[in-house]
This record gives sequence, C-alpha cells and structure tokens, in this order.
Amino acid sequence: MSKLALFGGAKTLGDGRDLKSSWPQKGMDEALCEYTGAKYARCVSSGTAALISGLFAAGCGPGDEVLTVAYTWVATVAAILRVNAVPIFVDIDPQTFCMDAEDARRKITPQTKAILPVDFYGHPAPIPELMELAEQHGIVVIEDACQASTGEINGVKLGNIAHFTAFSWSGKPIYSNTGGGAYLTNDRSLYERALLAGQHPTVIQGVATDPEVLKYASMGGTGDNMRAVGAGSAMEQLLDADVRTNARIRNCAYLTGKLSQLPGITPPYVRPGYKHVYHYYTCQWDADYWGISRDRFCEALNAEGVYAVAYINDANYQFTPESKKLQAGGPIHLRTIFQERNLYGRGCPFQCPHVKNPPVYRKGDLPVSEEMCEQEFSLAQGHLSPPCDEQDMQLMIDAITKVLDNIDELKEE
Amino acid sequence: MSKLALFGGAKTLGDGRDLKSSWPQKGMDEALCEYTGAKYARCVSSGTAALISGLFAAGCGPGDEVLTVAYTWVATVAAILRVNAVPIFVDIDPQTFCMDAEDARRKITPQTKAILPVDFYGHPAPIPELMELAEQHGIVVIEDACQASTGEINGVKLGNIAHFTAFSWSGKPIYSNTGGGAYLTNDRSLYERALLAGQHPTVIQGVATDPEVLKYASMGGTGDNMRAVGAGSAMEQLLDADVRTNARIRNCAYLTGKLSQLPGITPPYVRPGYKHVYHYYTCQWDADYWGISRDRFCEALNAEGVYAVAYINDANYQFTPESKKLQAGGPIHLRTIFQERNLYGRGCPFQCPHVKNPPVYRKGDLPVSEEMCEQEFSLAQGHLSPPCDEQDMQLMIDAITKVLDNIDELKEE
Repeated sequence: MSKLALFGGAKTLGDGRDLKSSWPQKGMDEALCEYTGAKYARCVSSGTAALISGLFAAGCGPGDEVLTVAYTWVATVAAILRVNAVPIFVDIDPQTFCMDAEDARRKITPQTKAILPVDFYGHPAPIPELMELAEQHGIVVIEDACQASTGEINGVKLGNIAHFTAFSWSGKPIYSNTGGGAYLTNDRSLYERALLAGQHPTVIQGVATDPEVLKYASMGGTGDNMRAVGAGSAMEQLLDADVRTNARIRNCAYLTGKLSQLPGITPPYVRPGYKHVYHYYTCQWDADYWGISRDRFCEALNAEGVYAVAYINDANYQFTPESKKLQAGGPIHLRTIFQERNLYGRGCPFQCPHVKNPPVYRKGDLPVSEEMCEQEFSLAQGHLSPPCDEQDMQLMIDAITKVLDNIDELKEE
Repeated sequence: MSKLALFGGAKTLGDGRDLKSSWPQKGMDEALCEYTGAKYARCVSSGTAALISGLFAAGCGPGDEVLTVAYTWVATVAAILRVNAVPIFVDIDPQTFCMDAEDARRKITPQTKAILPVDFYGHPAPIPELMELAEQHGIVVIEDACQASTGEINGVKLGNIAHFTAFSWSGKPIYSNTGGGAYLTNDRSLYERALLAGQHPTVIQGVATDPEVLKYASMGGTGDNMRAVGAGSAMEQLLDADVRTNARIRNCAYLTGKLSQLPGITPPYVRPGYKHVYHYYTCQWDADYWGISRDRFCEALNAEGVYAVAYINDANYQFTPESKKLQAGGPIHLRTIFQERNLYGRGCPFQCPHVKNPPVYRKGDLPVSEEMCEQEFSLAQGHLSPPCDEQDMQLMIDAITKVLDNIDELKEE
C-alpha cells in the first residue's frame, strides 16, 4: 500500500501535504511559557481571539460590565461586545496613554466582572495597581498586551503578571507572517475555560481536565474557529525578540534625546520600572505652539518619507490597494456603534434587559482620551526596528527638523 | 535615505518584511469570481468567519430564527449563535445527508430570517428548492459550502446560486496551508454588509459605497478580526481545483462500483444534476446485517490502515499530539450547549427576552439525523484525491473486504 497513507501515517494526506502543518503549534505554546515564565500559553487565531477567549473564560456575558479604554485599537472593545458584555470606558493617563488606575477604581460597580487594560503603543498598562484593585473586588484582569508582547514590568515579562494576557503576532513585536496570537495565564481554570471560546472538539477533550469544560468539548466550546493555523514565523521571531526589542528601544532613546530638544513636541514618556517596547513611537504635537494642525504636520512628514500616523483618529490607516483613509472622529466611545448602541439588533448588548444601567457614551466623558487623540502622532515599529539604526533615526529627525524649519510654508498653503 | 522606507515605499518595513504579504489577497477574490461566476467574493479568516459574515449581512440577530441542520460540523451552528440568533434544526435527506427542503418548509415561522443549509461531505444541498422557499418568504439562503467549494448544481458552480455562499480552505477541496475561507454573493448589499462582521476600518472605507455600511467603518464593523492573512496556497490550488476534484470523483466512482456489490454497506448517493465533490466519501453501515457495530468496523478498518471516521459521533476526530477521541453523542442538537440553552449566560441567545418561542432541543426531534449518525462511516478526502488512483482505491476495497471476510473474529473479541 505504497501511496496510501496508513494509520499512524494517516497524518500524511494523499496529495502530499502533511497535516502537521495545520496543527496548533504546541512547540510555540511551550516556548512562550519559557519566554515569559507564564505557566500556560496557547496560540490562537488572532490577538482578538485571545481577548475573547479571556473574557469567555472569566464568565463575562450579558449584563456584565467590563472596564476598558476607548483609546485603543477597535479589537479591544469588540472582544467585550463579542461576549455580549458591556464596555465601560476608563480614561487614560496622559503620559503613558494607558488606563488611569484611579479612574478605573471610580468606575467599578457591582456589575463589573473584569478589567481589560491595554499596553498601548507598547507601554505596559499599570497592571500591578489594576491587579490589586481587581483582587479587592474579586474580578479578573485581562491584559491586552497585543502591542507589547516583549514588554516587562519591574523585570517580569508580560504574560506572567495579569490573570490573563493576550498577545498578537500581526505586525507586532513578535511577528508572524501568518498572523495569529496567543493567550497566557498562570491560572489552570482560566486556561481551560478559555479553550471554550472555540477550539477543535478533540483537542479540548485532550487538553482539558475540568468536567465543566469537557462537557462542552463536543461542540468545540462555542464552536467558533479560534484555532491557530500554526505559529508561522512567530517562533523564529521569538528567538531574538529581546534583541530586536532592545535595539528598537535604543533607536527610540536616540529619537527622544533629539526630539526633547525641540519645542512643541513631547516625546513618549516611560514609567520607571516599565519596559516600553515601542510598537509605535508616539509623540504629542502642540498645534498652538506651531500654528498648524497635527494632521497637516503628519502630511508633511509623510511627504518627506516618514510614515507618521494619527493612530486613533486615522483608525490605524494601512496602505493597501483597497484601503482608504478615514477620519474616525476620535476615540472608540464616540463611534457609531456606541452612539446607536444596537450592535446585534434590539439594543444588544448595550440595552439588553439584563443590563442594570444601560450605558450612554458621550463626548466629554473621557477628557484625556479625547484630547490626546487630537495631539498624538506615531512613528511605526517597522521603521524603528533593526536593521534601522541611529543613522536612520537621524534621517527621521532631519525630516522632522526640515518640516519645522519650513513650517511657515505649511501655514500659507 | 537608503534604508528608511519612504512614503510610497512605506509598505516595506524596516526589518525587511513586506506588508503586501499580509494584505487581503485581492487577486484571490477576483480569481474566485472568475472560477464560480459570482459577482463578488472576499477572502476571510475562516469558513466560520464567512458564515458569520453572511448572517450579519442578512441582519440575523437576537430573537431571529435561522433554519439549519444538526447533521454538520459545529461551525455551521456556532455561526448562528455568534450573532445571537436561534438555530432551528431541520432534518436531513437520508440519501444526500443534506437539509430536507420539505422539512425546512414546515419549520418556517414569521421569526425565520435565513436558511443555512450545508453541502455536507461535498454533496450540494437542495439550493434551488431552498431558494424558491426563501423567496416566497422574503428571507435569505446562506449556503455553507465549506466542504464543497468545487461543487456544482446543474452545471452552475456553487457560489453563484444561493444568495450568499461560504467557502473554507482548511483541509477542503480548495486547500490553503494558512487556513482561511471566503464568501461569495451576487448581491452588492450583502457583499458590503458582510464586511461589517469584521474587516480593517480603512478597507471597509475603501471598498464600501453604502452610507449605512460606511458609518461603521471606523470600528471595523463589529471590530472582530475576520480578515484573511492571505490566501496562502489556495490560489495555486484553485488553478487545478477541477482537475483534482474530477480525479477524486473518478476514484470515488470506482469505490462505489465495488462497494455496491457488497451487502450491508450503502455507498454515497449522488442526486442527478448535482456534482458531489467528496470532501468525505460517506457510506452507511448495516450493523444488523453484519452483526457488529459501526464503531467496531471503523476500528478494524483503521487497524488495516484505512482512515475511517464516524464524522458526527467522533466530532471529526483529528490526529494531533493534543487530540483525544471523544464520543459526541450524536448530532449537534443533542450536545450540552443545546440542552442547557445558556451559551453566553442568562439564557442568551436561546431564552433571550426577544425570542418569541424559546426552542427546546430533544432526542427524537430529527429522526433521520439521529439514525444516520449511528450508521455512517467516512473515508477522508486526503486518501481519495490524486496522486491516489484506482490502484489505491482497490487497496481500500481490499482492506474493507478483508475486514468483512473476517467479521466473525470481530464478533468474538
């Protein structure tokens, strides 16, 4: 039976492809545990899938409130809606662009089931403070570390600090050519329950030990497809993740050294003990000082060959043949879904009969978030990472200086 | 500015990777239109994502009923739950294993918003009858063609018949090493609204023309991640999809010729005018005739090197280091989620206050589905496709014959 793949060899399909290539990459899961120190890690189909897995594991559902930020990529908030819970927005710290732990404390109610902070632009959120807050209230911290998978707080790797952490490989500090992401936790129960967001039935059966998880195995959990196709190039990237991250940090330190000498531009702040891994290098633009808008400044920088983006307002504009620049009009809470509050029809999940206090999302609710999105401009990781070095950073500084030296021309246009 | 990627060249990131590799594969979208004749096609992250996109496009939400089958892979039904609609199960035709159009007619109510038939094992569902039924009631047919992407009805390719069609590349007739899938439709409105299940904001902005779609662009639709990473090997597979499919059909015709001479085994039926593409080659086992159970027969076949699976009951058992065989205990409607009716907590979506008649799922509801899952055994596409040929098919026949010739030994064990 030469060409027929036999049992035991049944993994090799008749047309020569090997099912192993579509296996969840157990090797990557183990490597992530070793890299971060987390007890459990699992590759999933995206960072969004990792967040959904965490919220599902934490039991977030209709009528539950989840604290998060409006100053983030859409997926953070979408994950909360995905499990039919209600996002309650917390304002950000104007220095780190991350959740303001004091504002989080004020917004906790008896309905709060989880806190979902974001390590935005690569700067870790104040996880220690949020963990303390969560533990006082018996709730769970699900950390969106999608932009900060190589970050640390006080020498401890992200993935090993919050109750549950989400990573992404999509153009992120650990990158994969096939997309994907992973979740990490030290809590066996969260690890197993997170499988229920959507993994293969026979894998849940093989991995889980809890009867309350196993009883859903035959449906593959919710039956959604959050399985990793494979880790792609993420494993290779993991091997020198810290080398690349540290080189990027050095490049960014060079930028900060130069930019801090210029008026009207505030370079990124790094909180002591926090390892900012610069998925983006985000500055604040003082339009009053310079007399031109942030957007006009970005256009001029782009014309000089420096990819500069107003991340929040431009909805992370991507250059593809199909994409088209749009003005998002501010942080997440101001976008149409949150104004209409009717994502799934019949008011679901915002005005579900199980929601005790249906939220209303208004301009002015989050003053720091709303102000920052008018001031920020970001340089993207791709231009900050090796092989780019100080010479390249100086070229960006030169471009910025050139624009500033000629700023009067921009005013006249 | 040598190493710095300039604007226009800003697509090339600093570490040498090219953003093009993560672009949605516009080429594959166009190739799918050409292959099927459908007006619109879009690659998404999985077949499940394609189904969710269709249900979202059709406006299915809380309180809405969607007709589907319980004799399917979990993702079909999961997609309905994902949009918080309620699955109403229709029984199957015992010959094709596909939705029974007459039973569908009986189960339509004023709450029915869509019909979601499955081209199961590669045999197209009775789409023409279901389209007629849907048009009488002003509802939408969303065809789960994940197992039948190369199939046809009366010479017309799937993707160009139902209102909306979902394909998958995950081990399917058109295969990709990076997973994924696509949706196809001739309806511009469904095409655009389907983007809202979760695509990049600036891509929705670039593709859509309907203001009712564009107003959700900045959130990326629901903000979920259903974007294709790329088509991987699917494009290459598409080029000779019909050649491979037709070779597989010839192999299966050989099997059918031989197996139809054996008692107590019913080979697959093919409805006239329908192109069955044999994602699985599924027979019925007569346990009464042979005196041993279907499962015992499958075990014996597996021991002979022929991968035979009781697809429904074994929850499509996959051989991976992490997987473990389980007994699903029958079609989807009998699994825990449908017995508990509490997927997202608080009874959601089954017992949502917006559901007019909360469904109850009972054993005996779907007699044909329940009976067939005890009788079926399937041989998988991988062993039926080229390079396997008639000689290989004969080796499988030999193995089956060997088991049958020695069936008394199995009884004694």
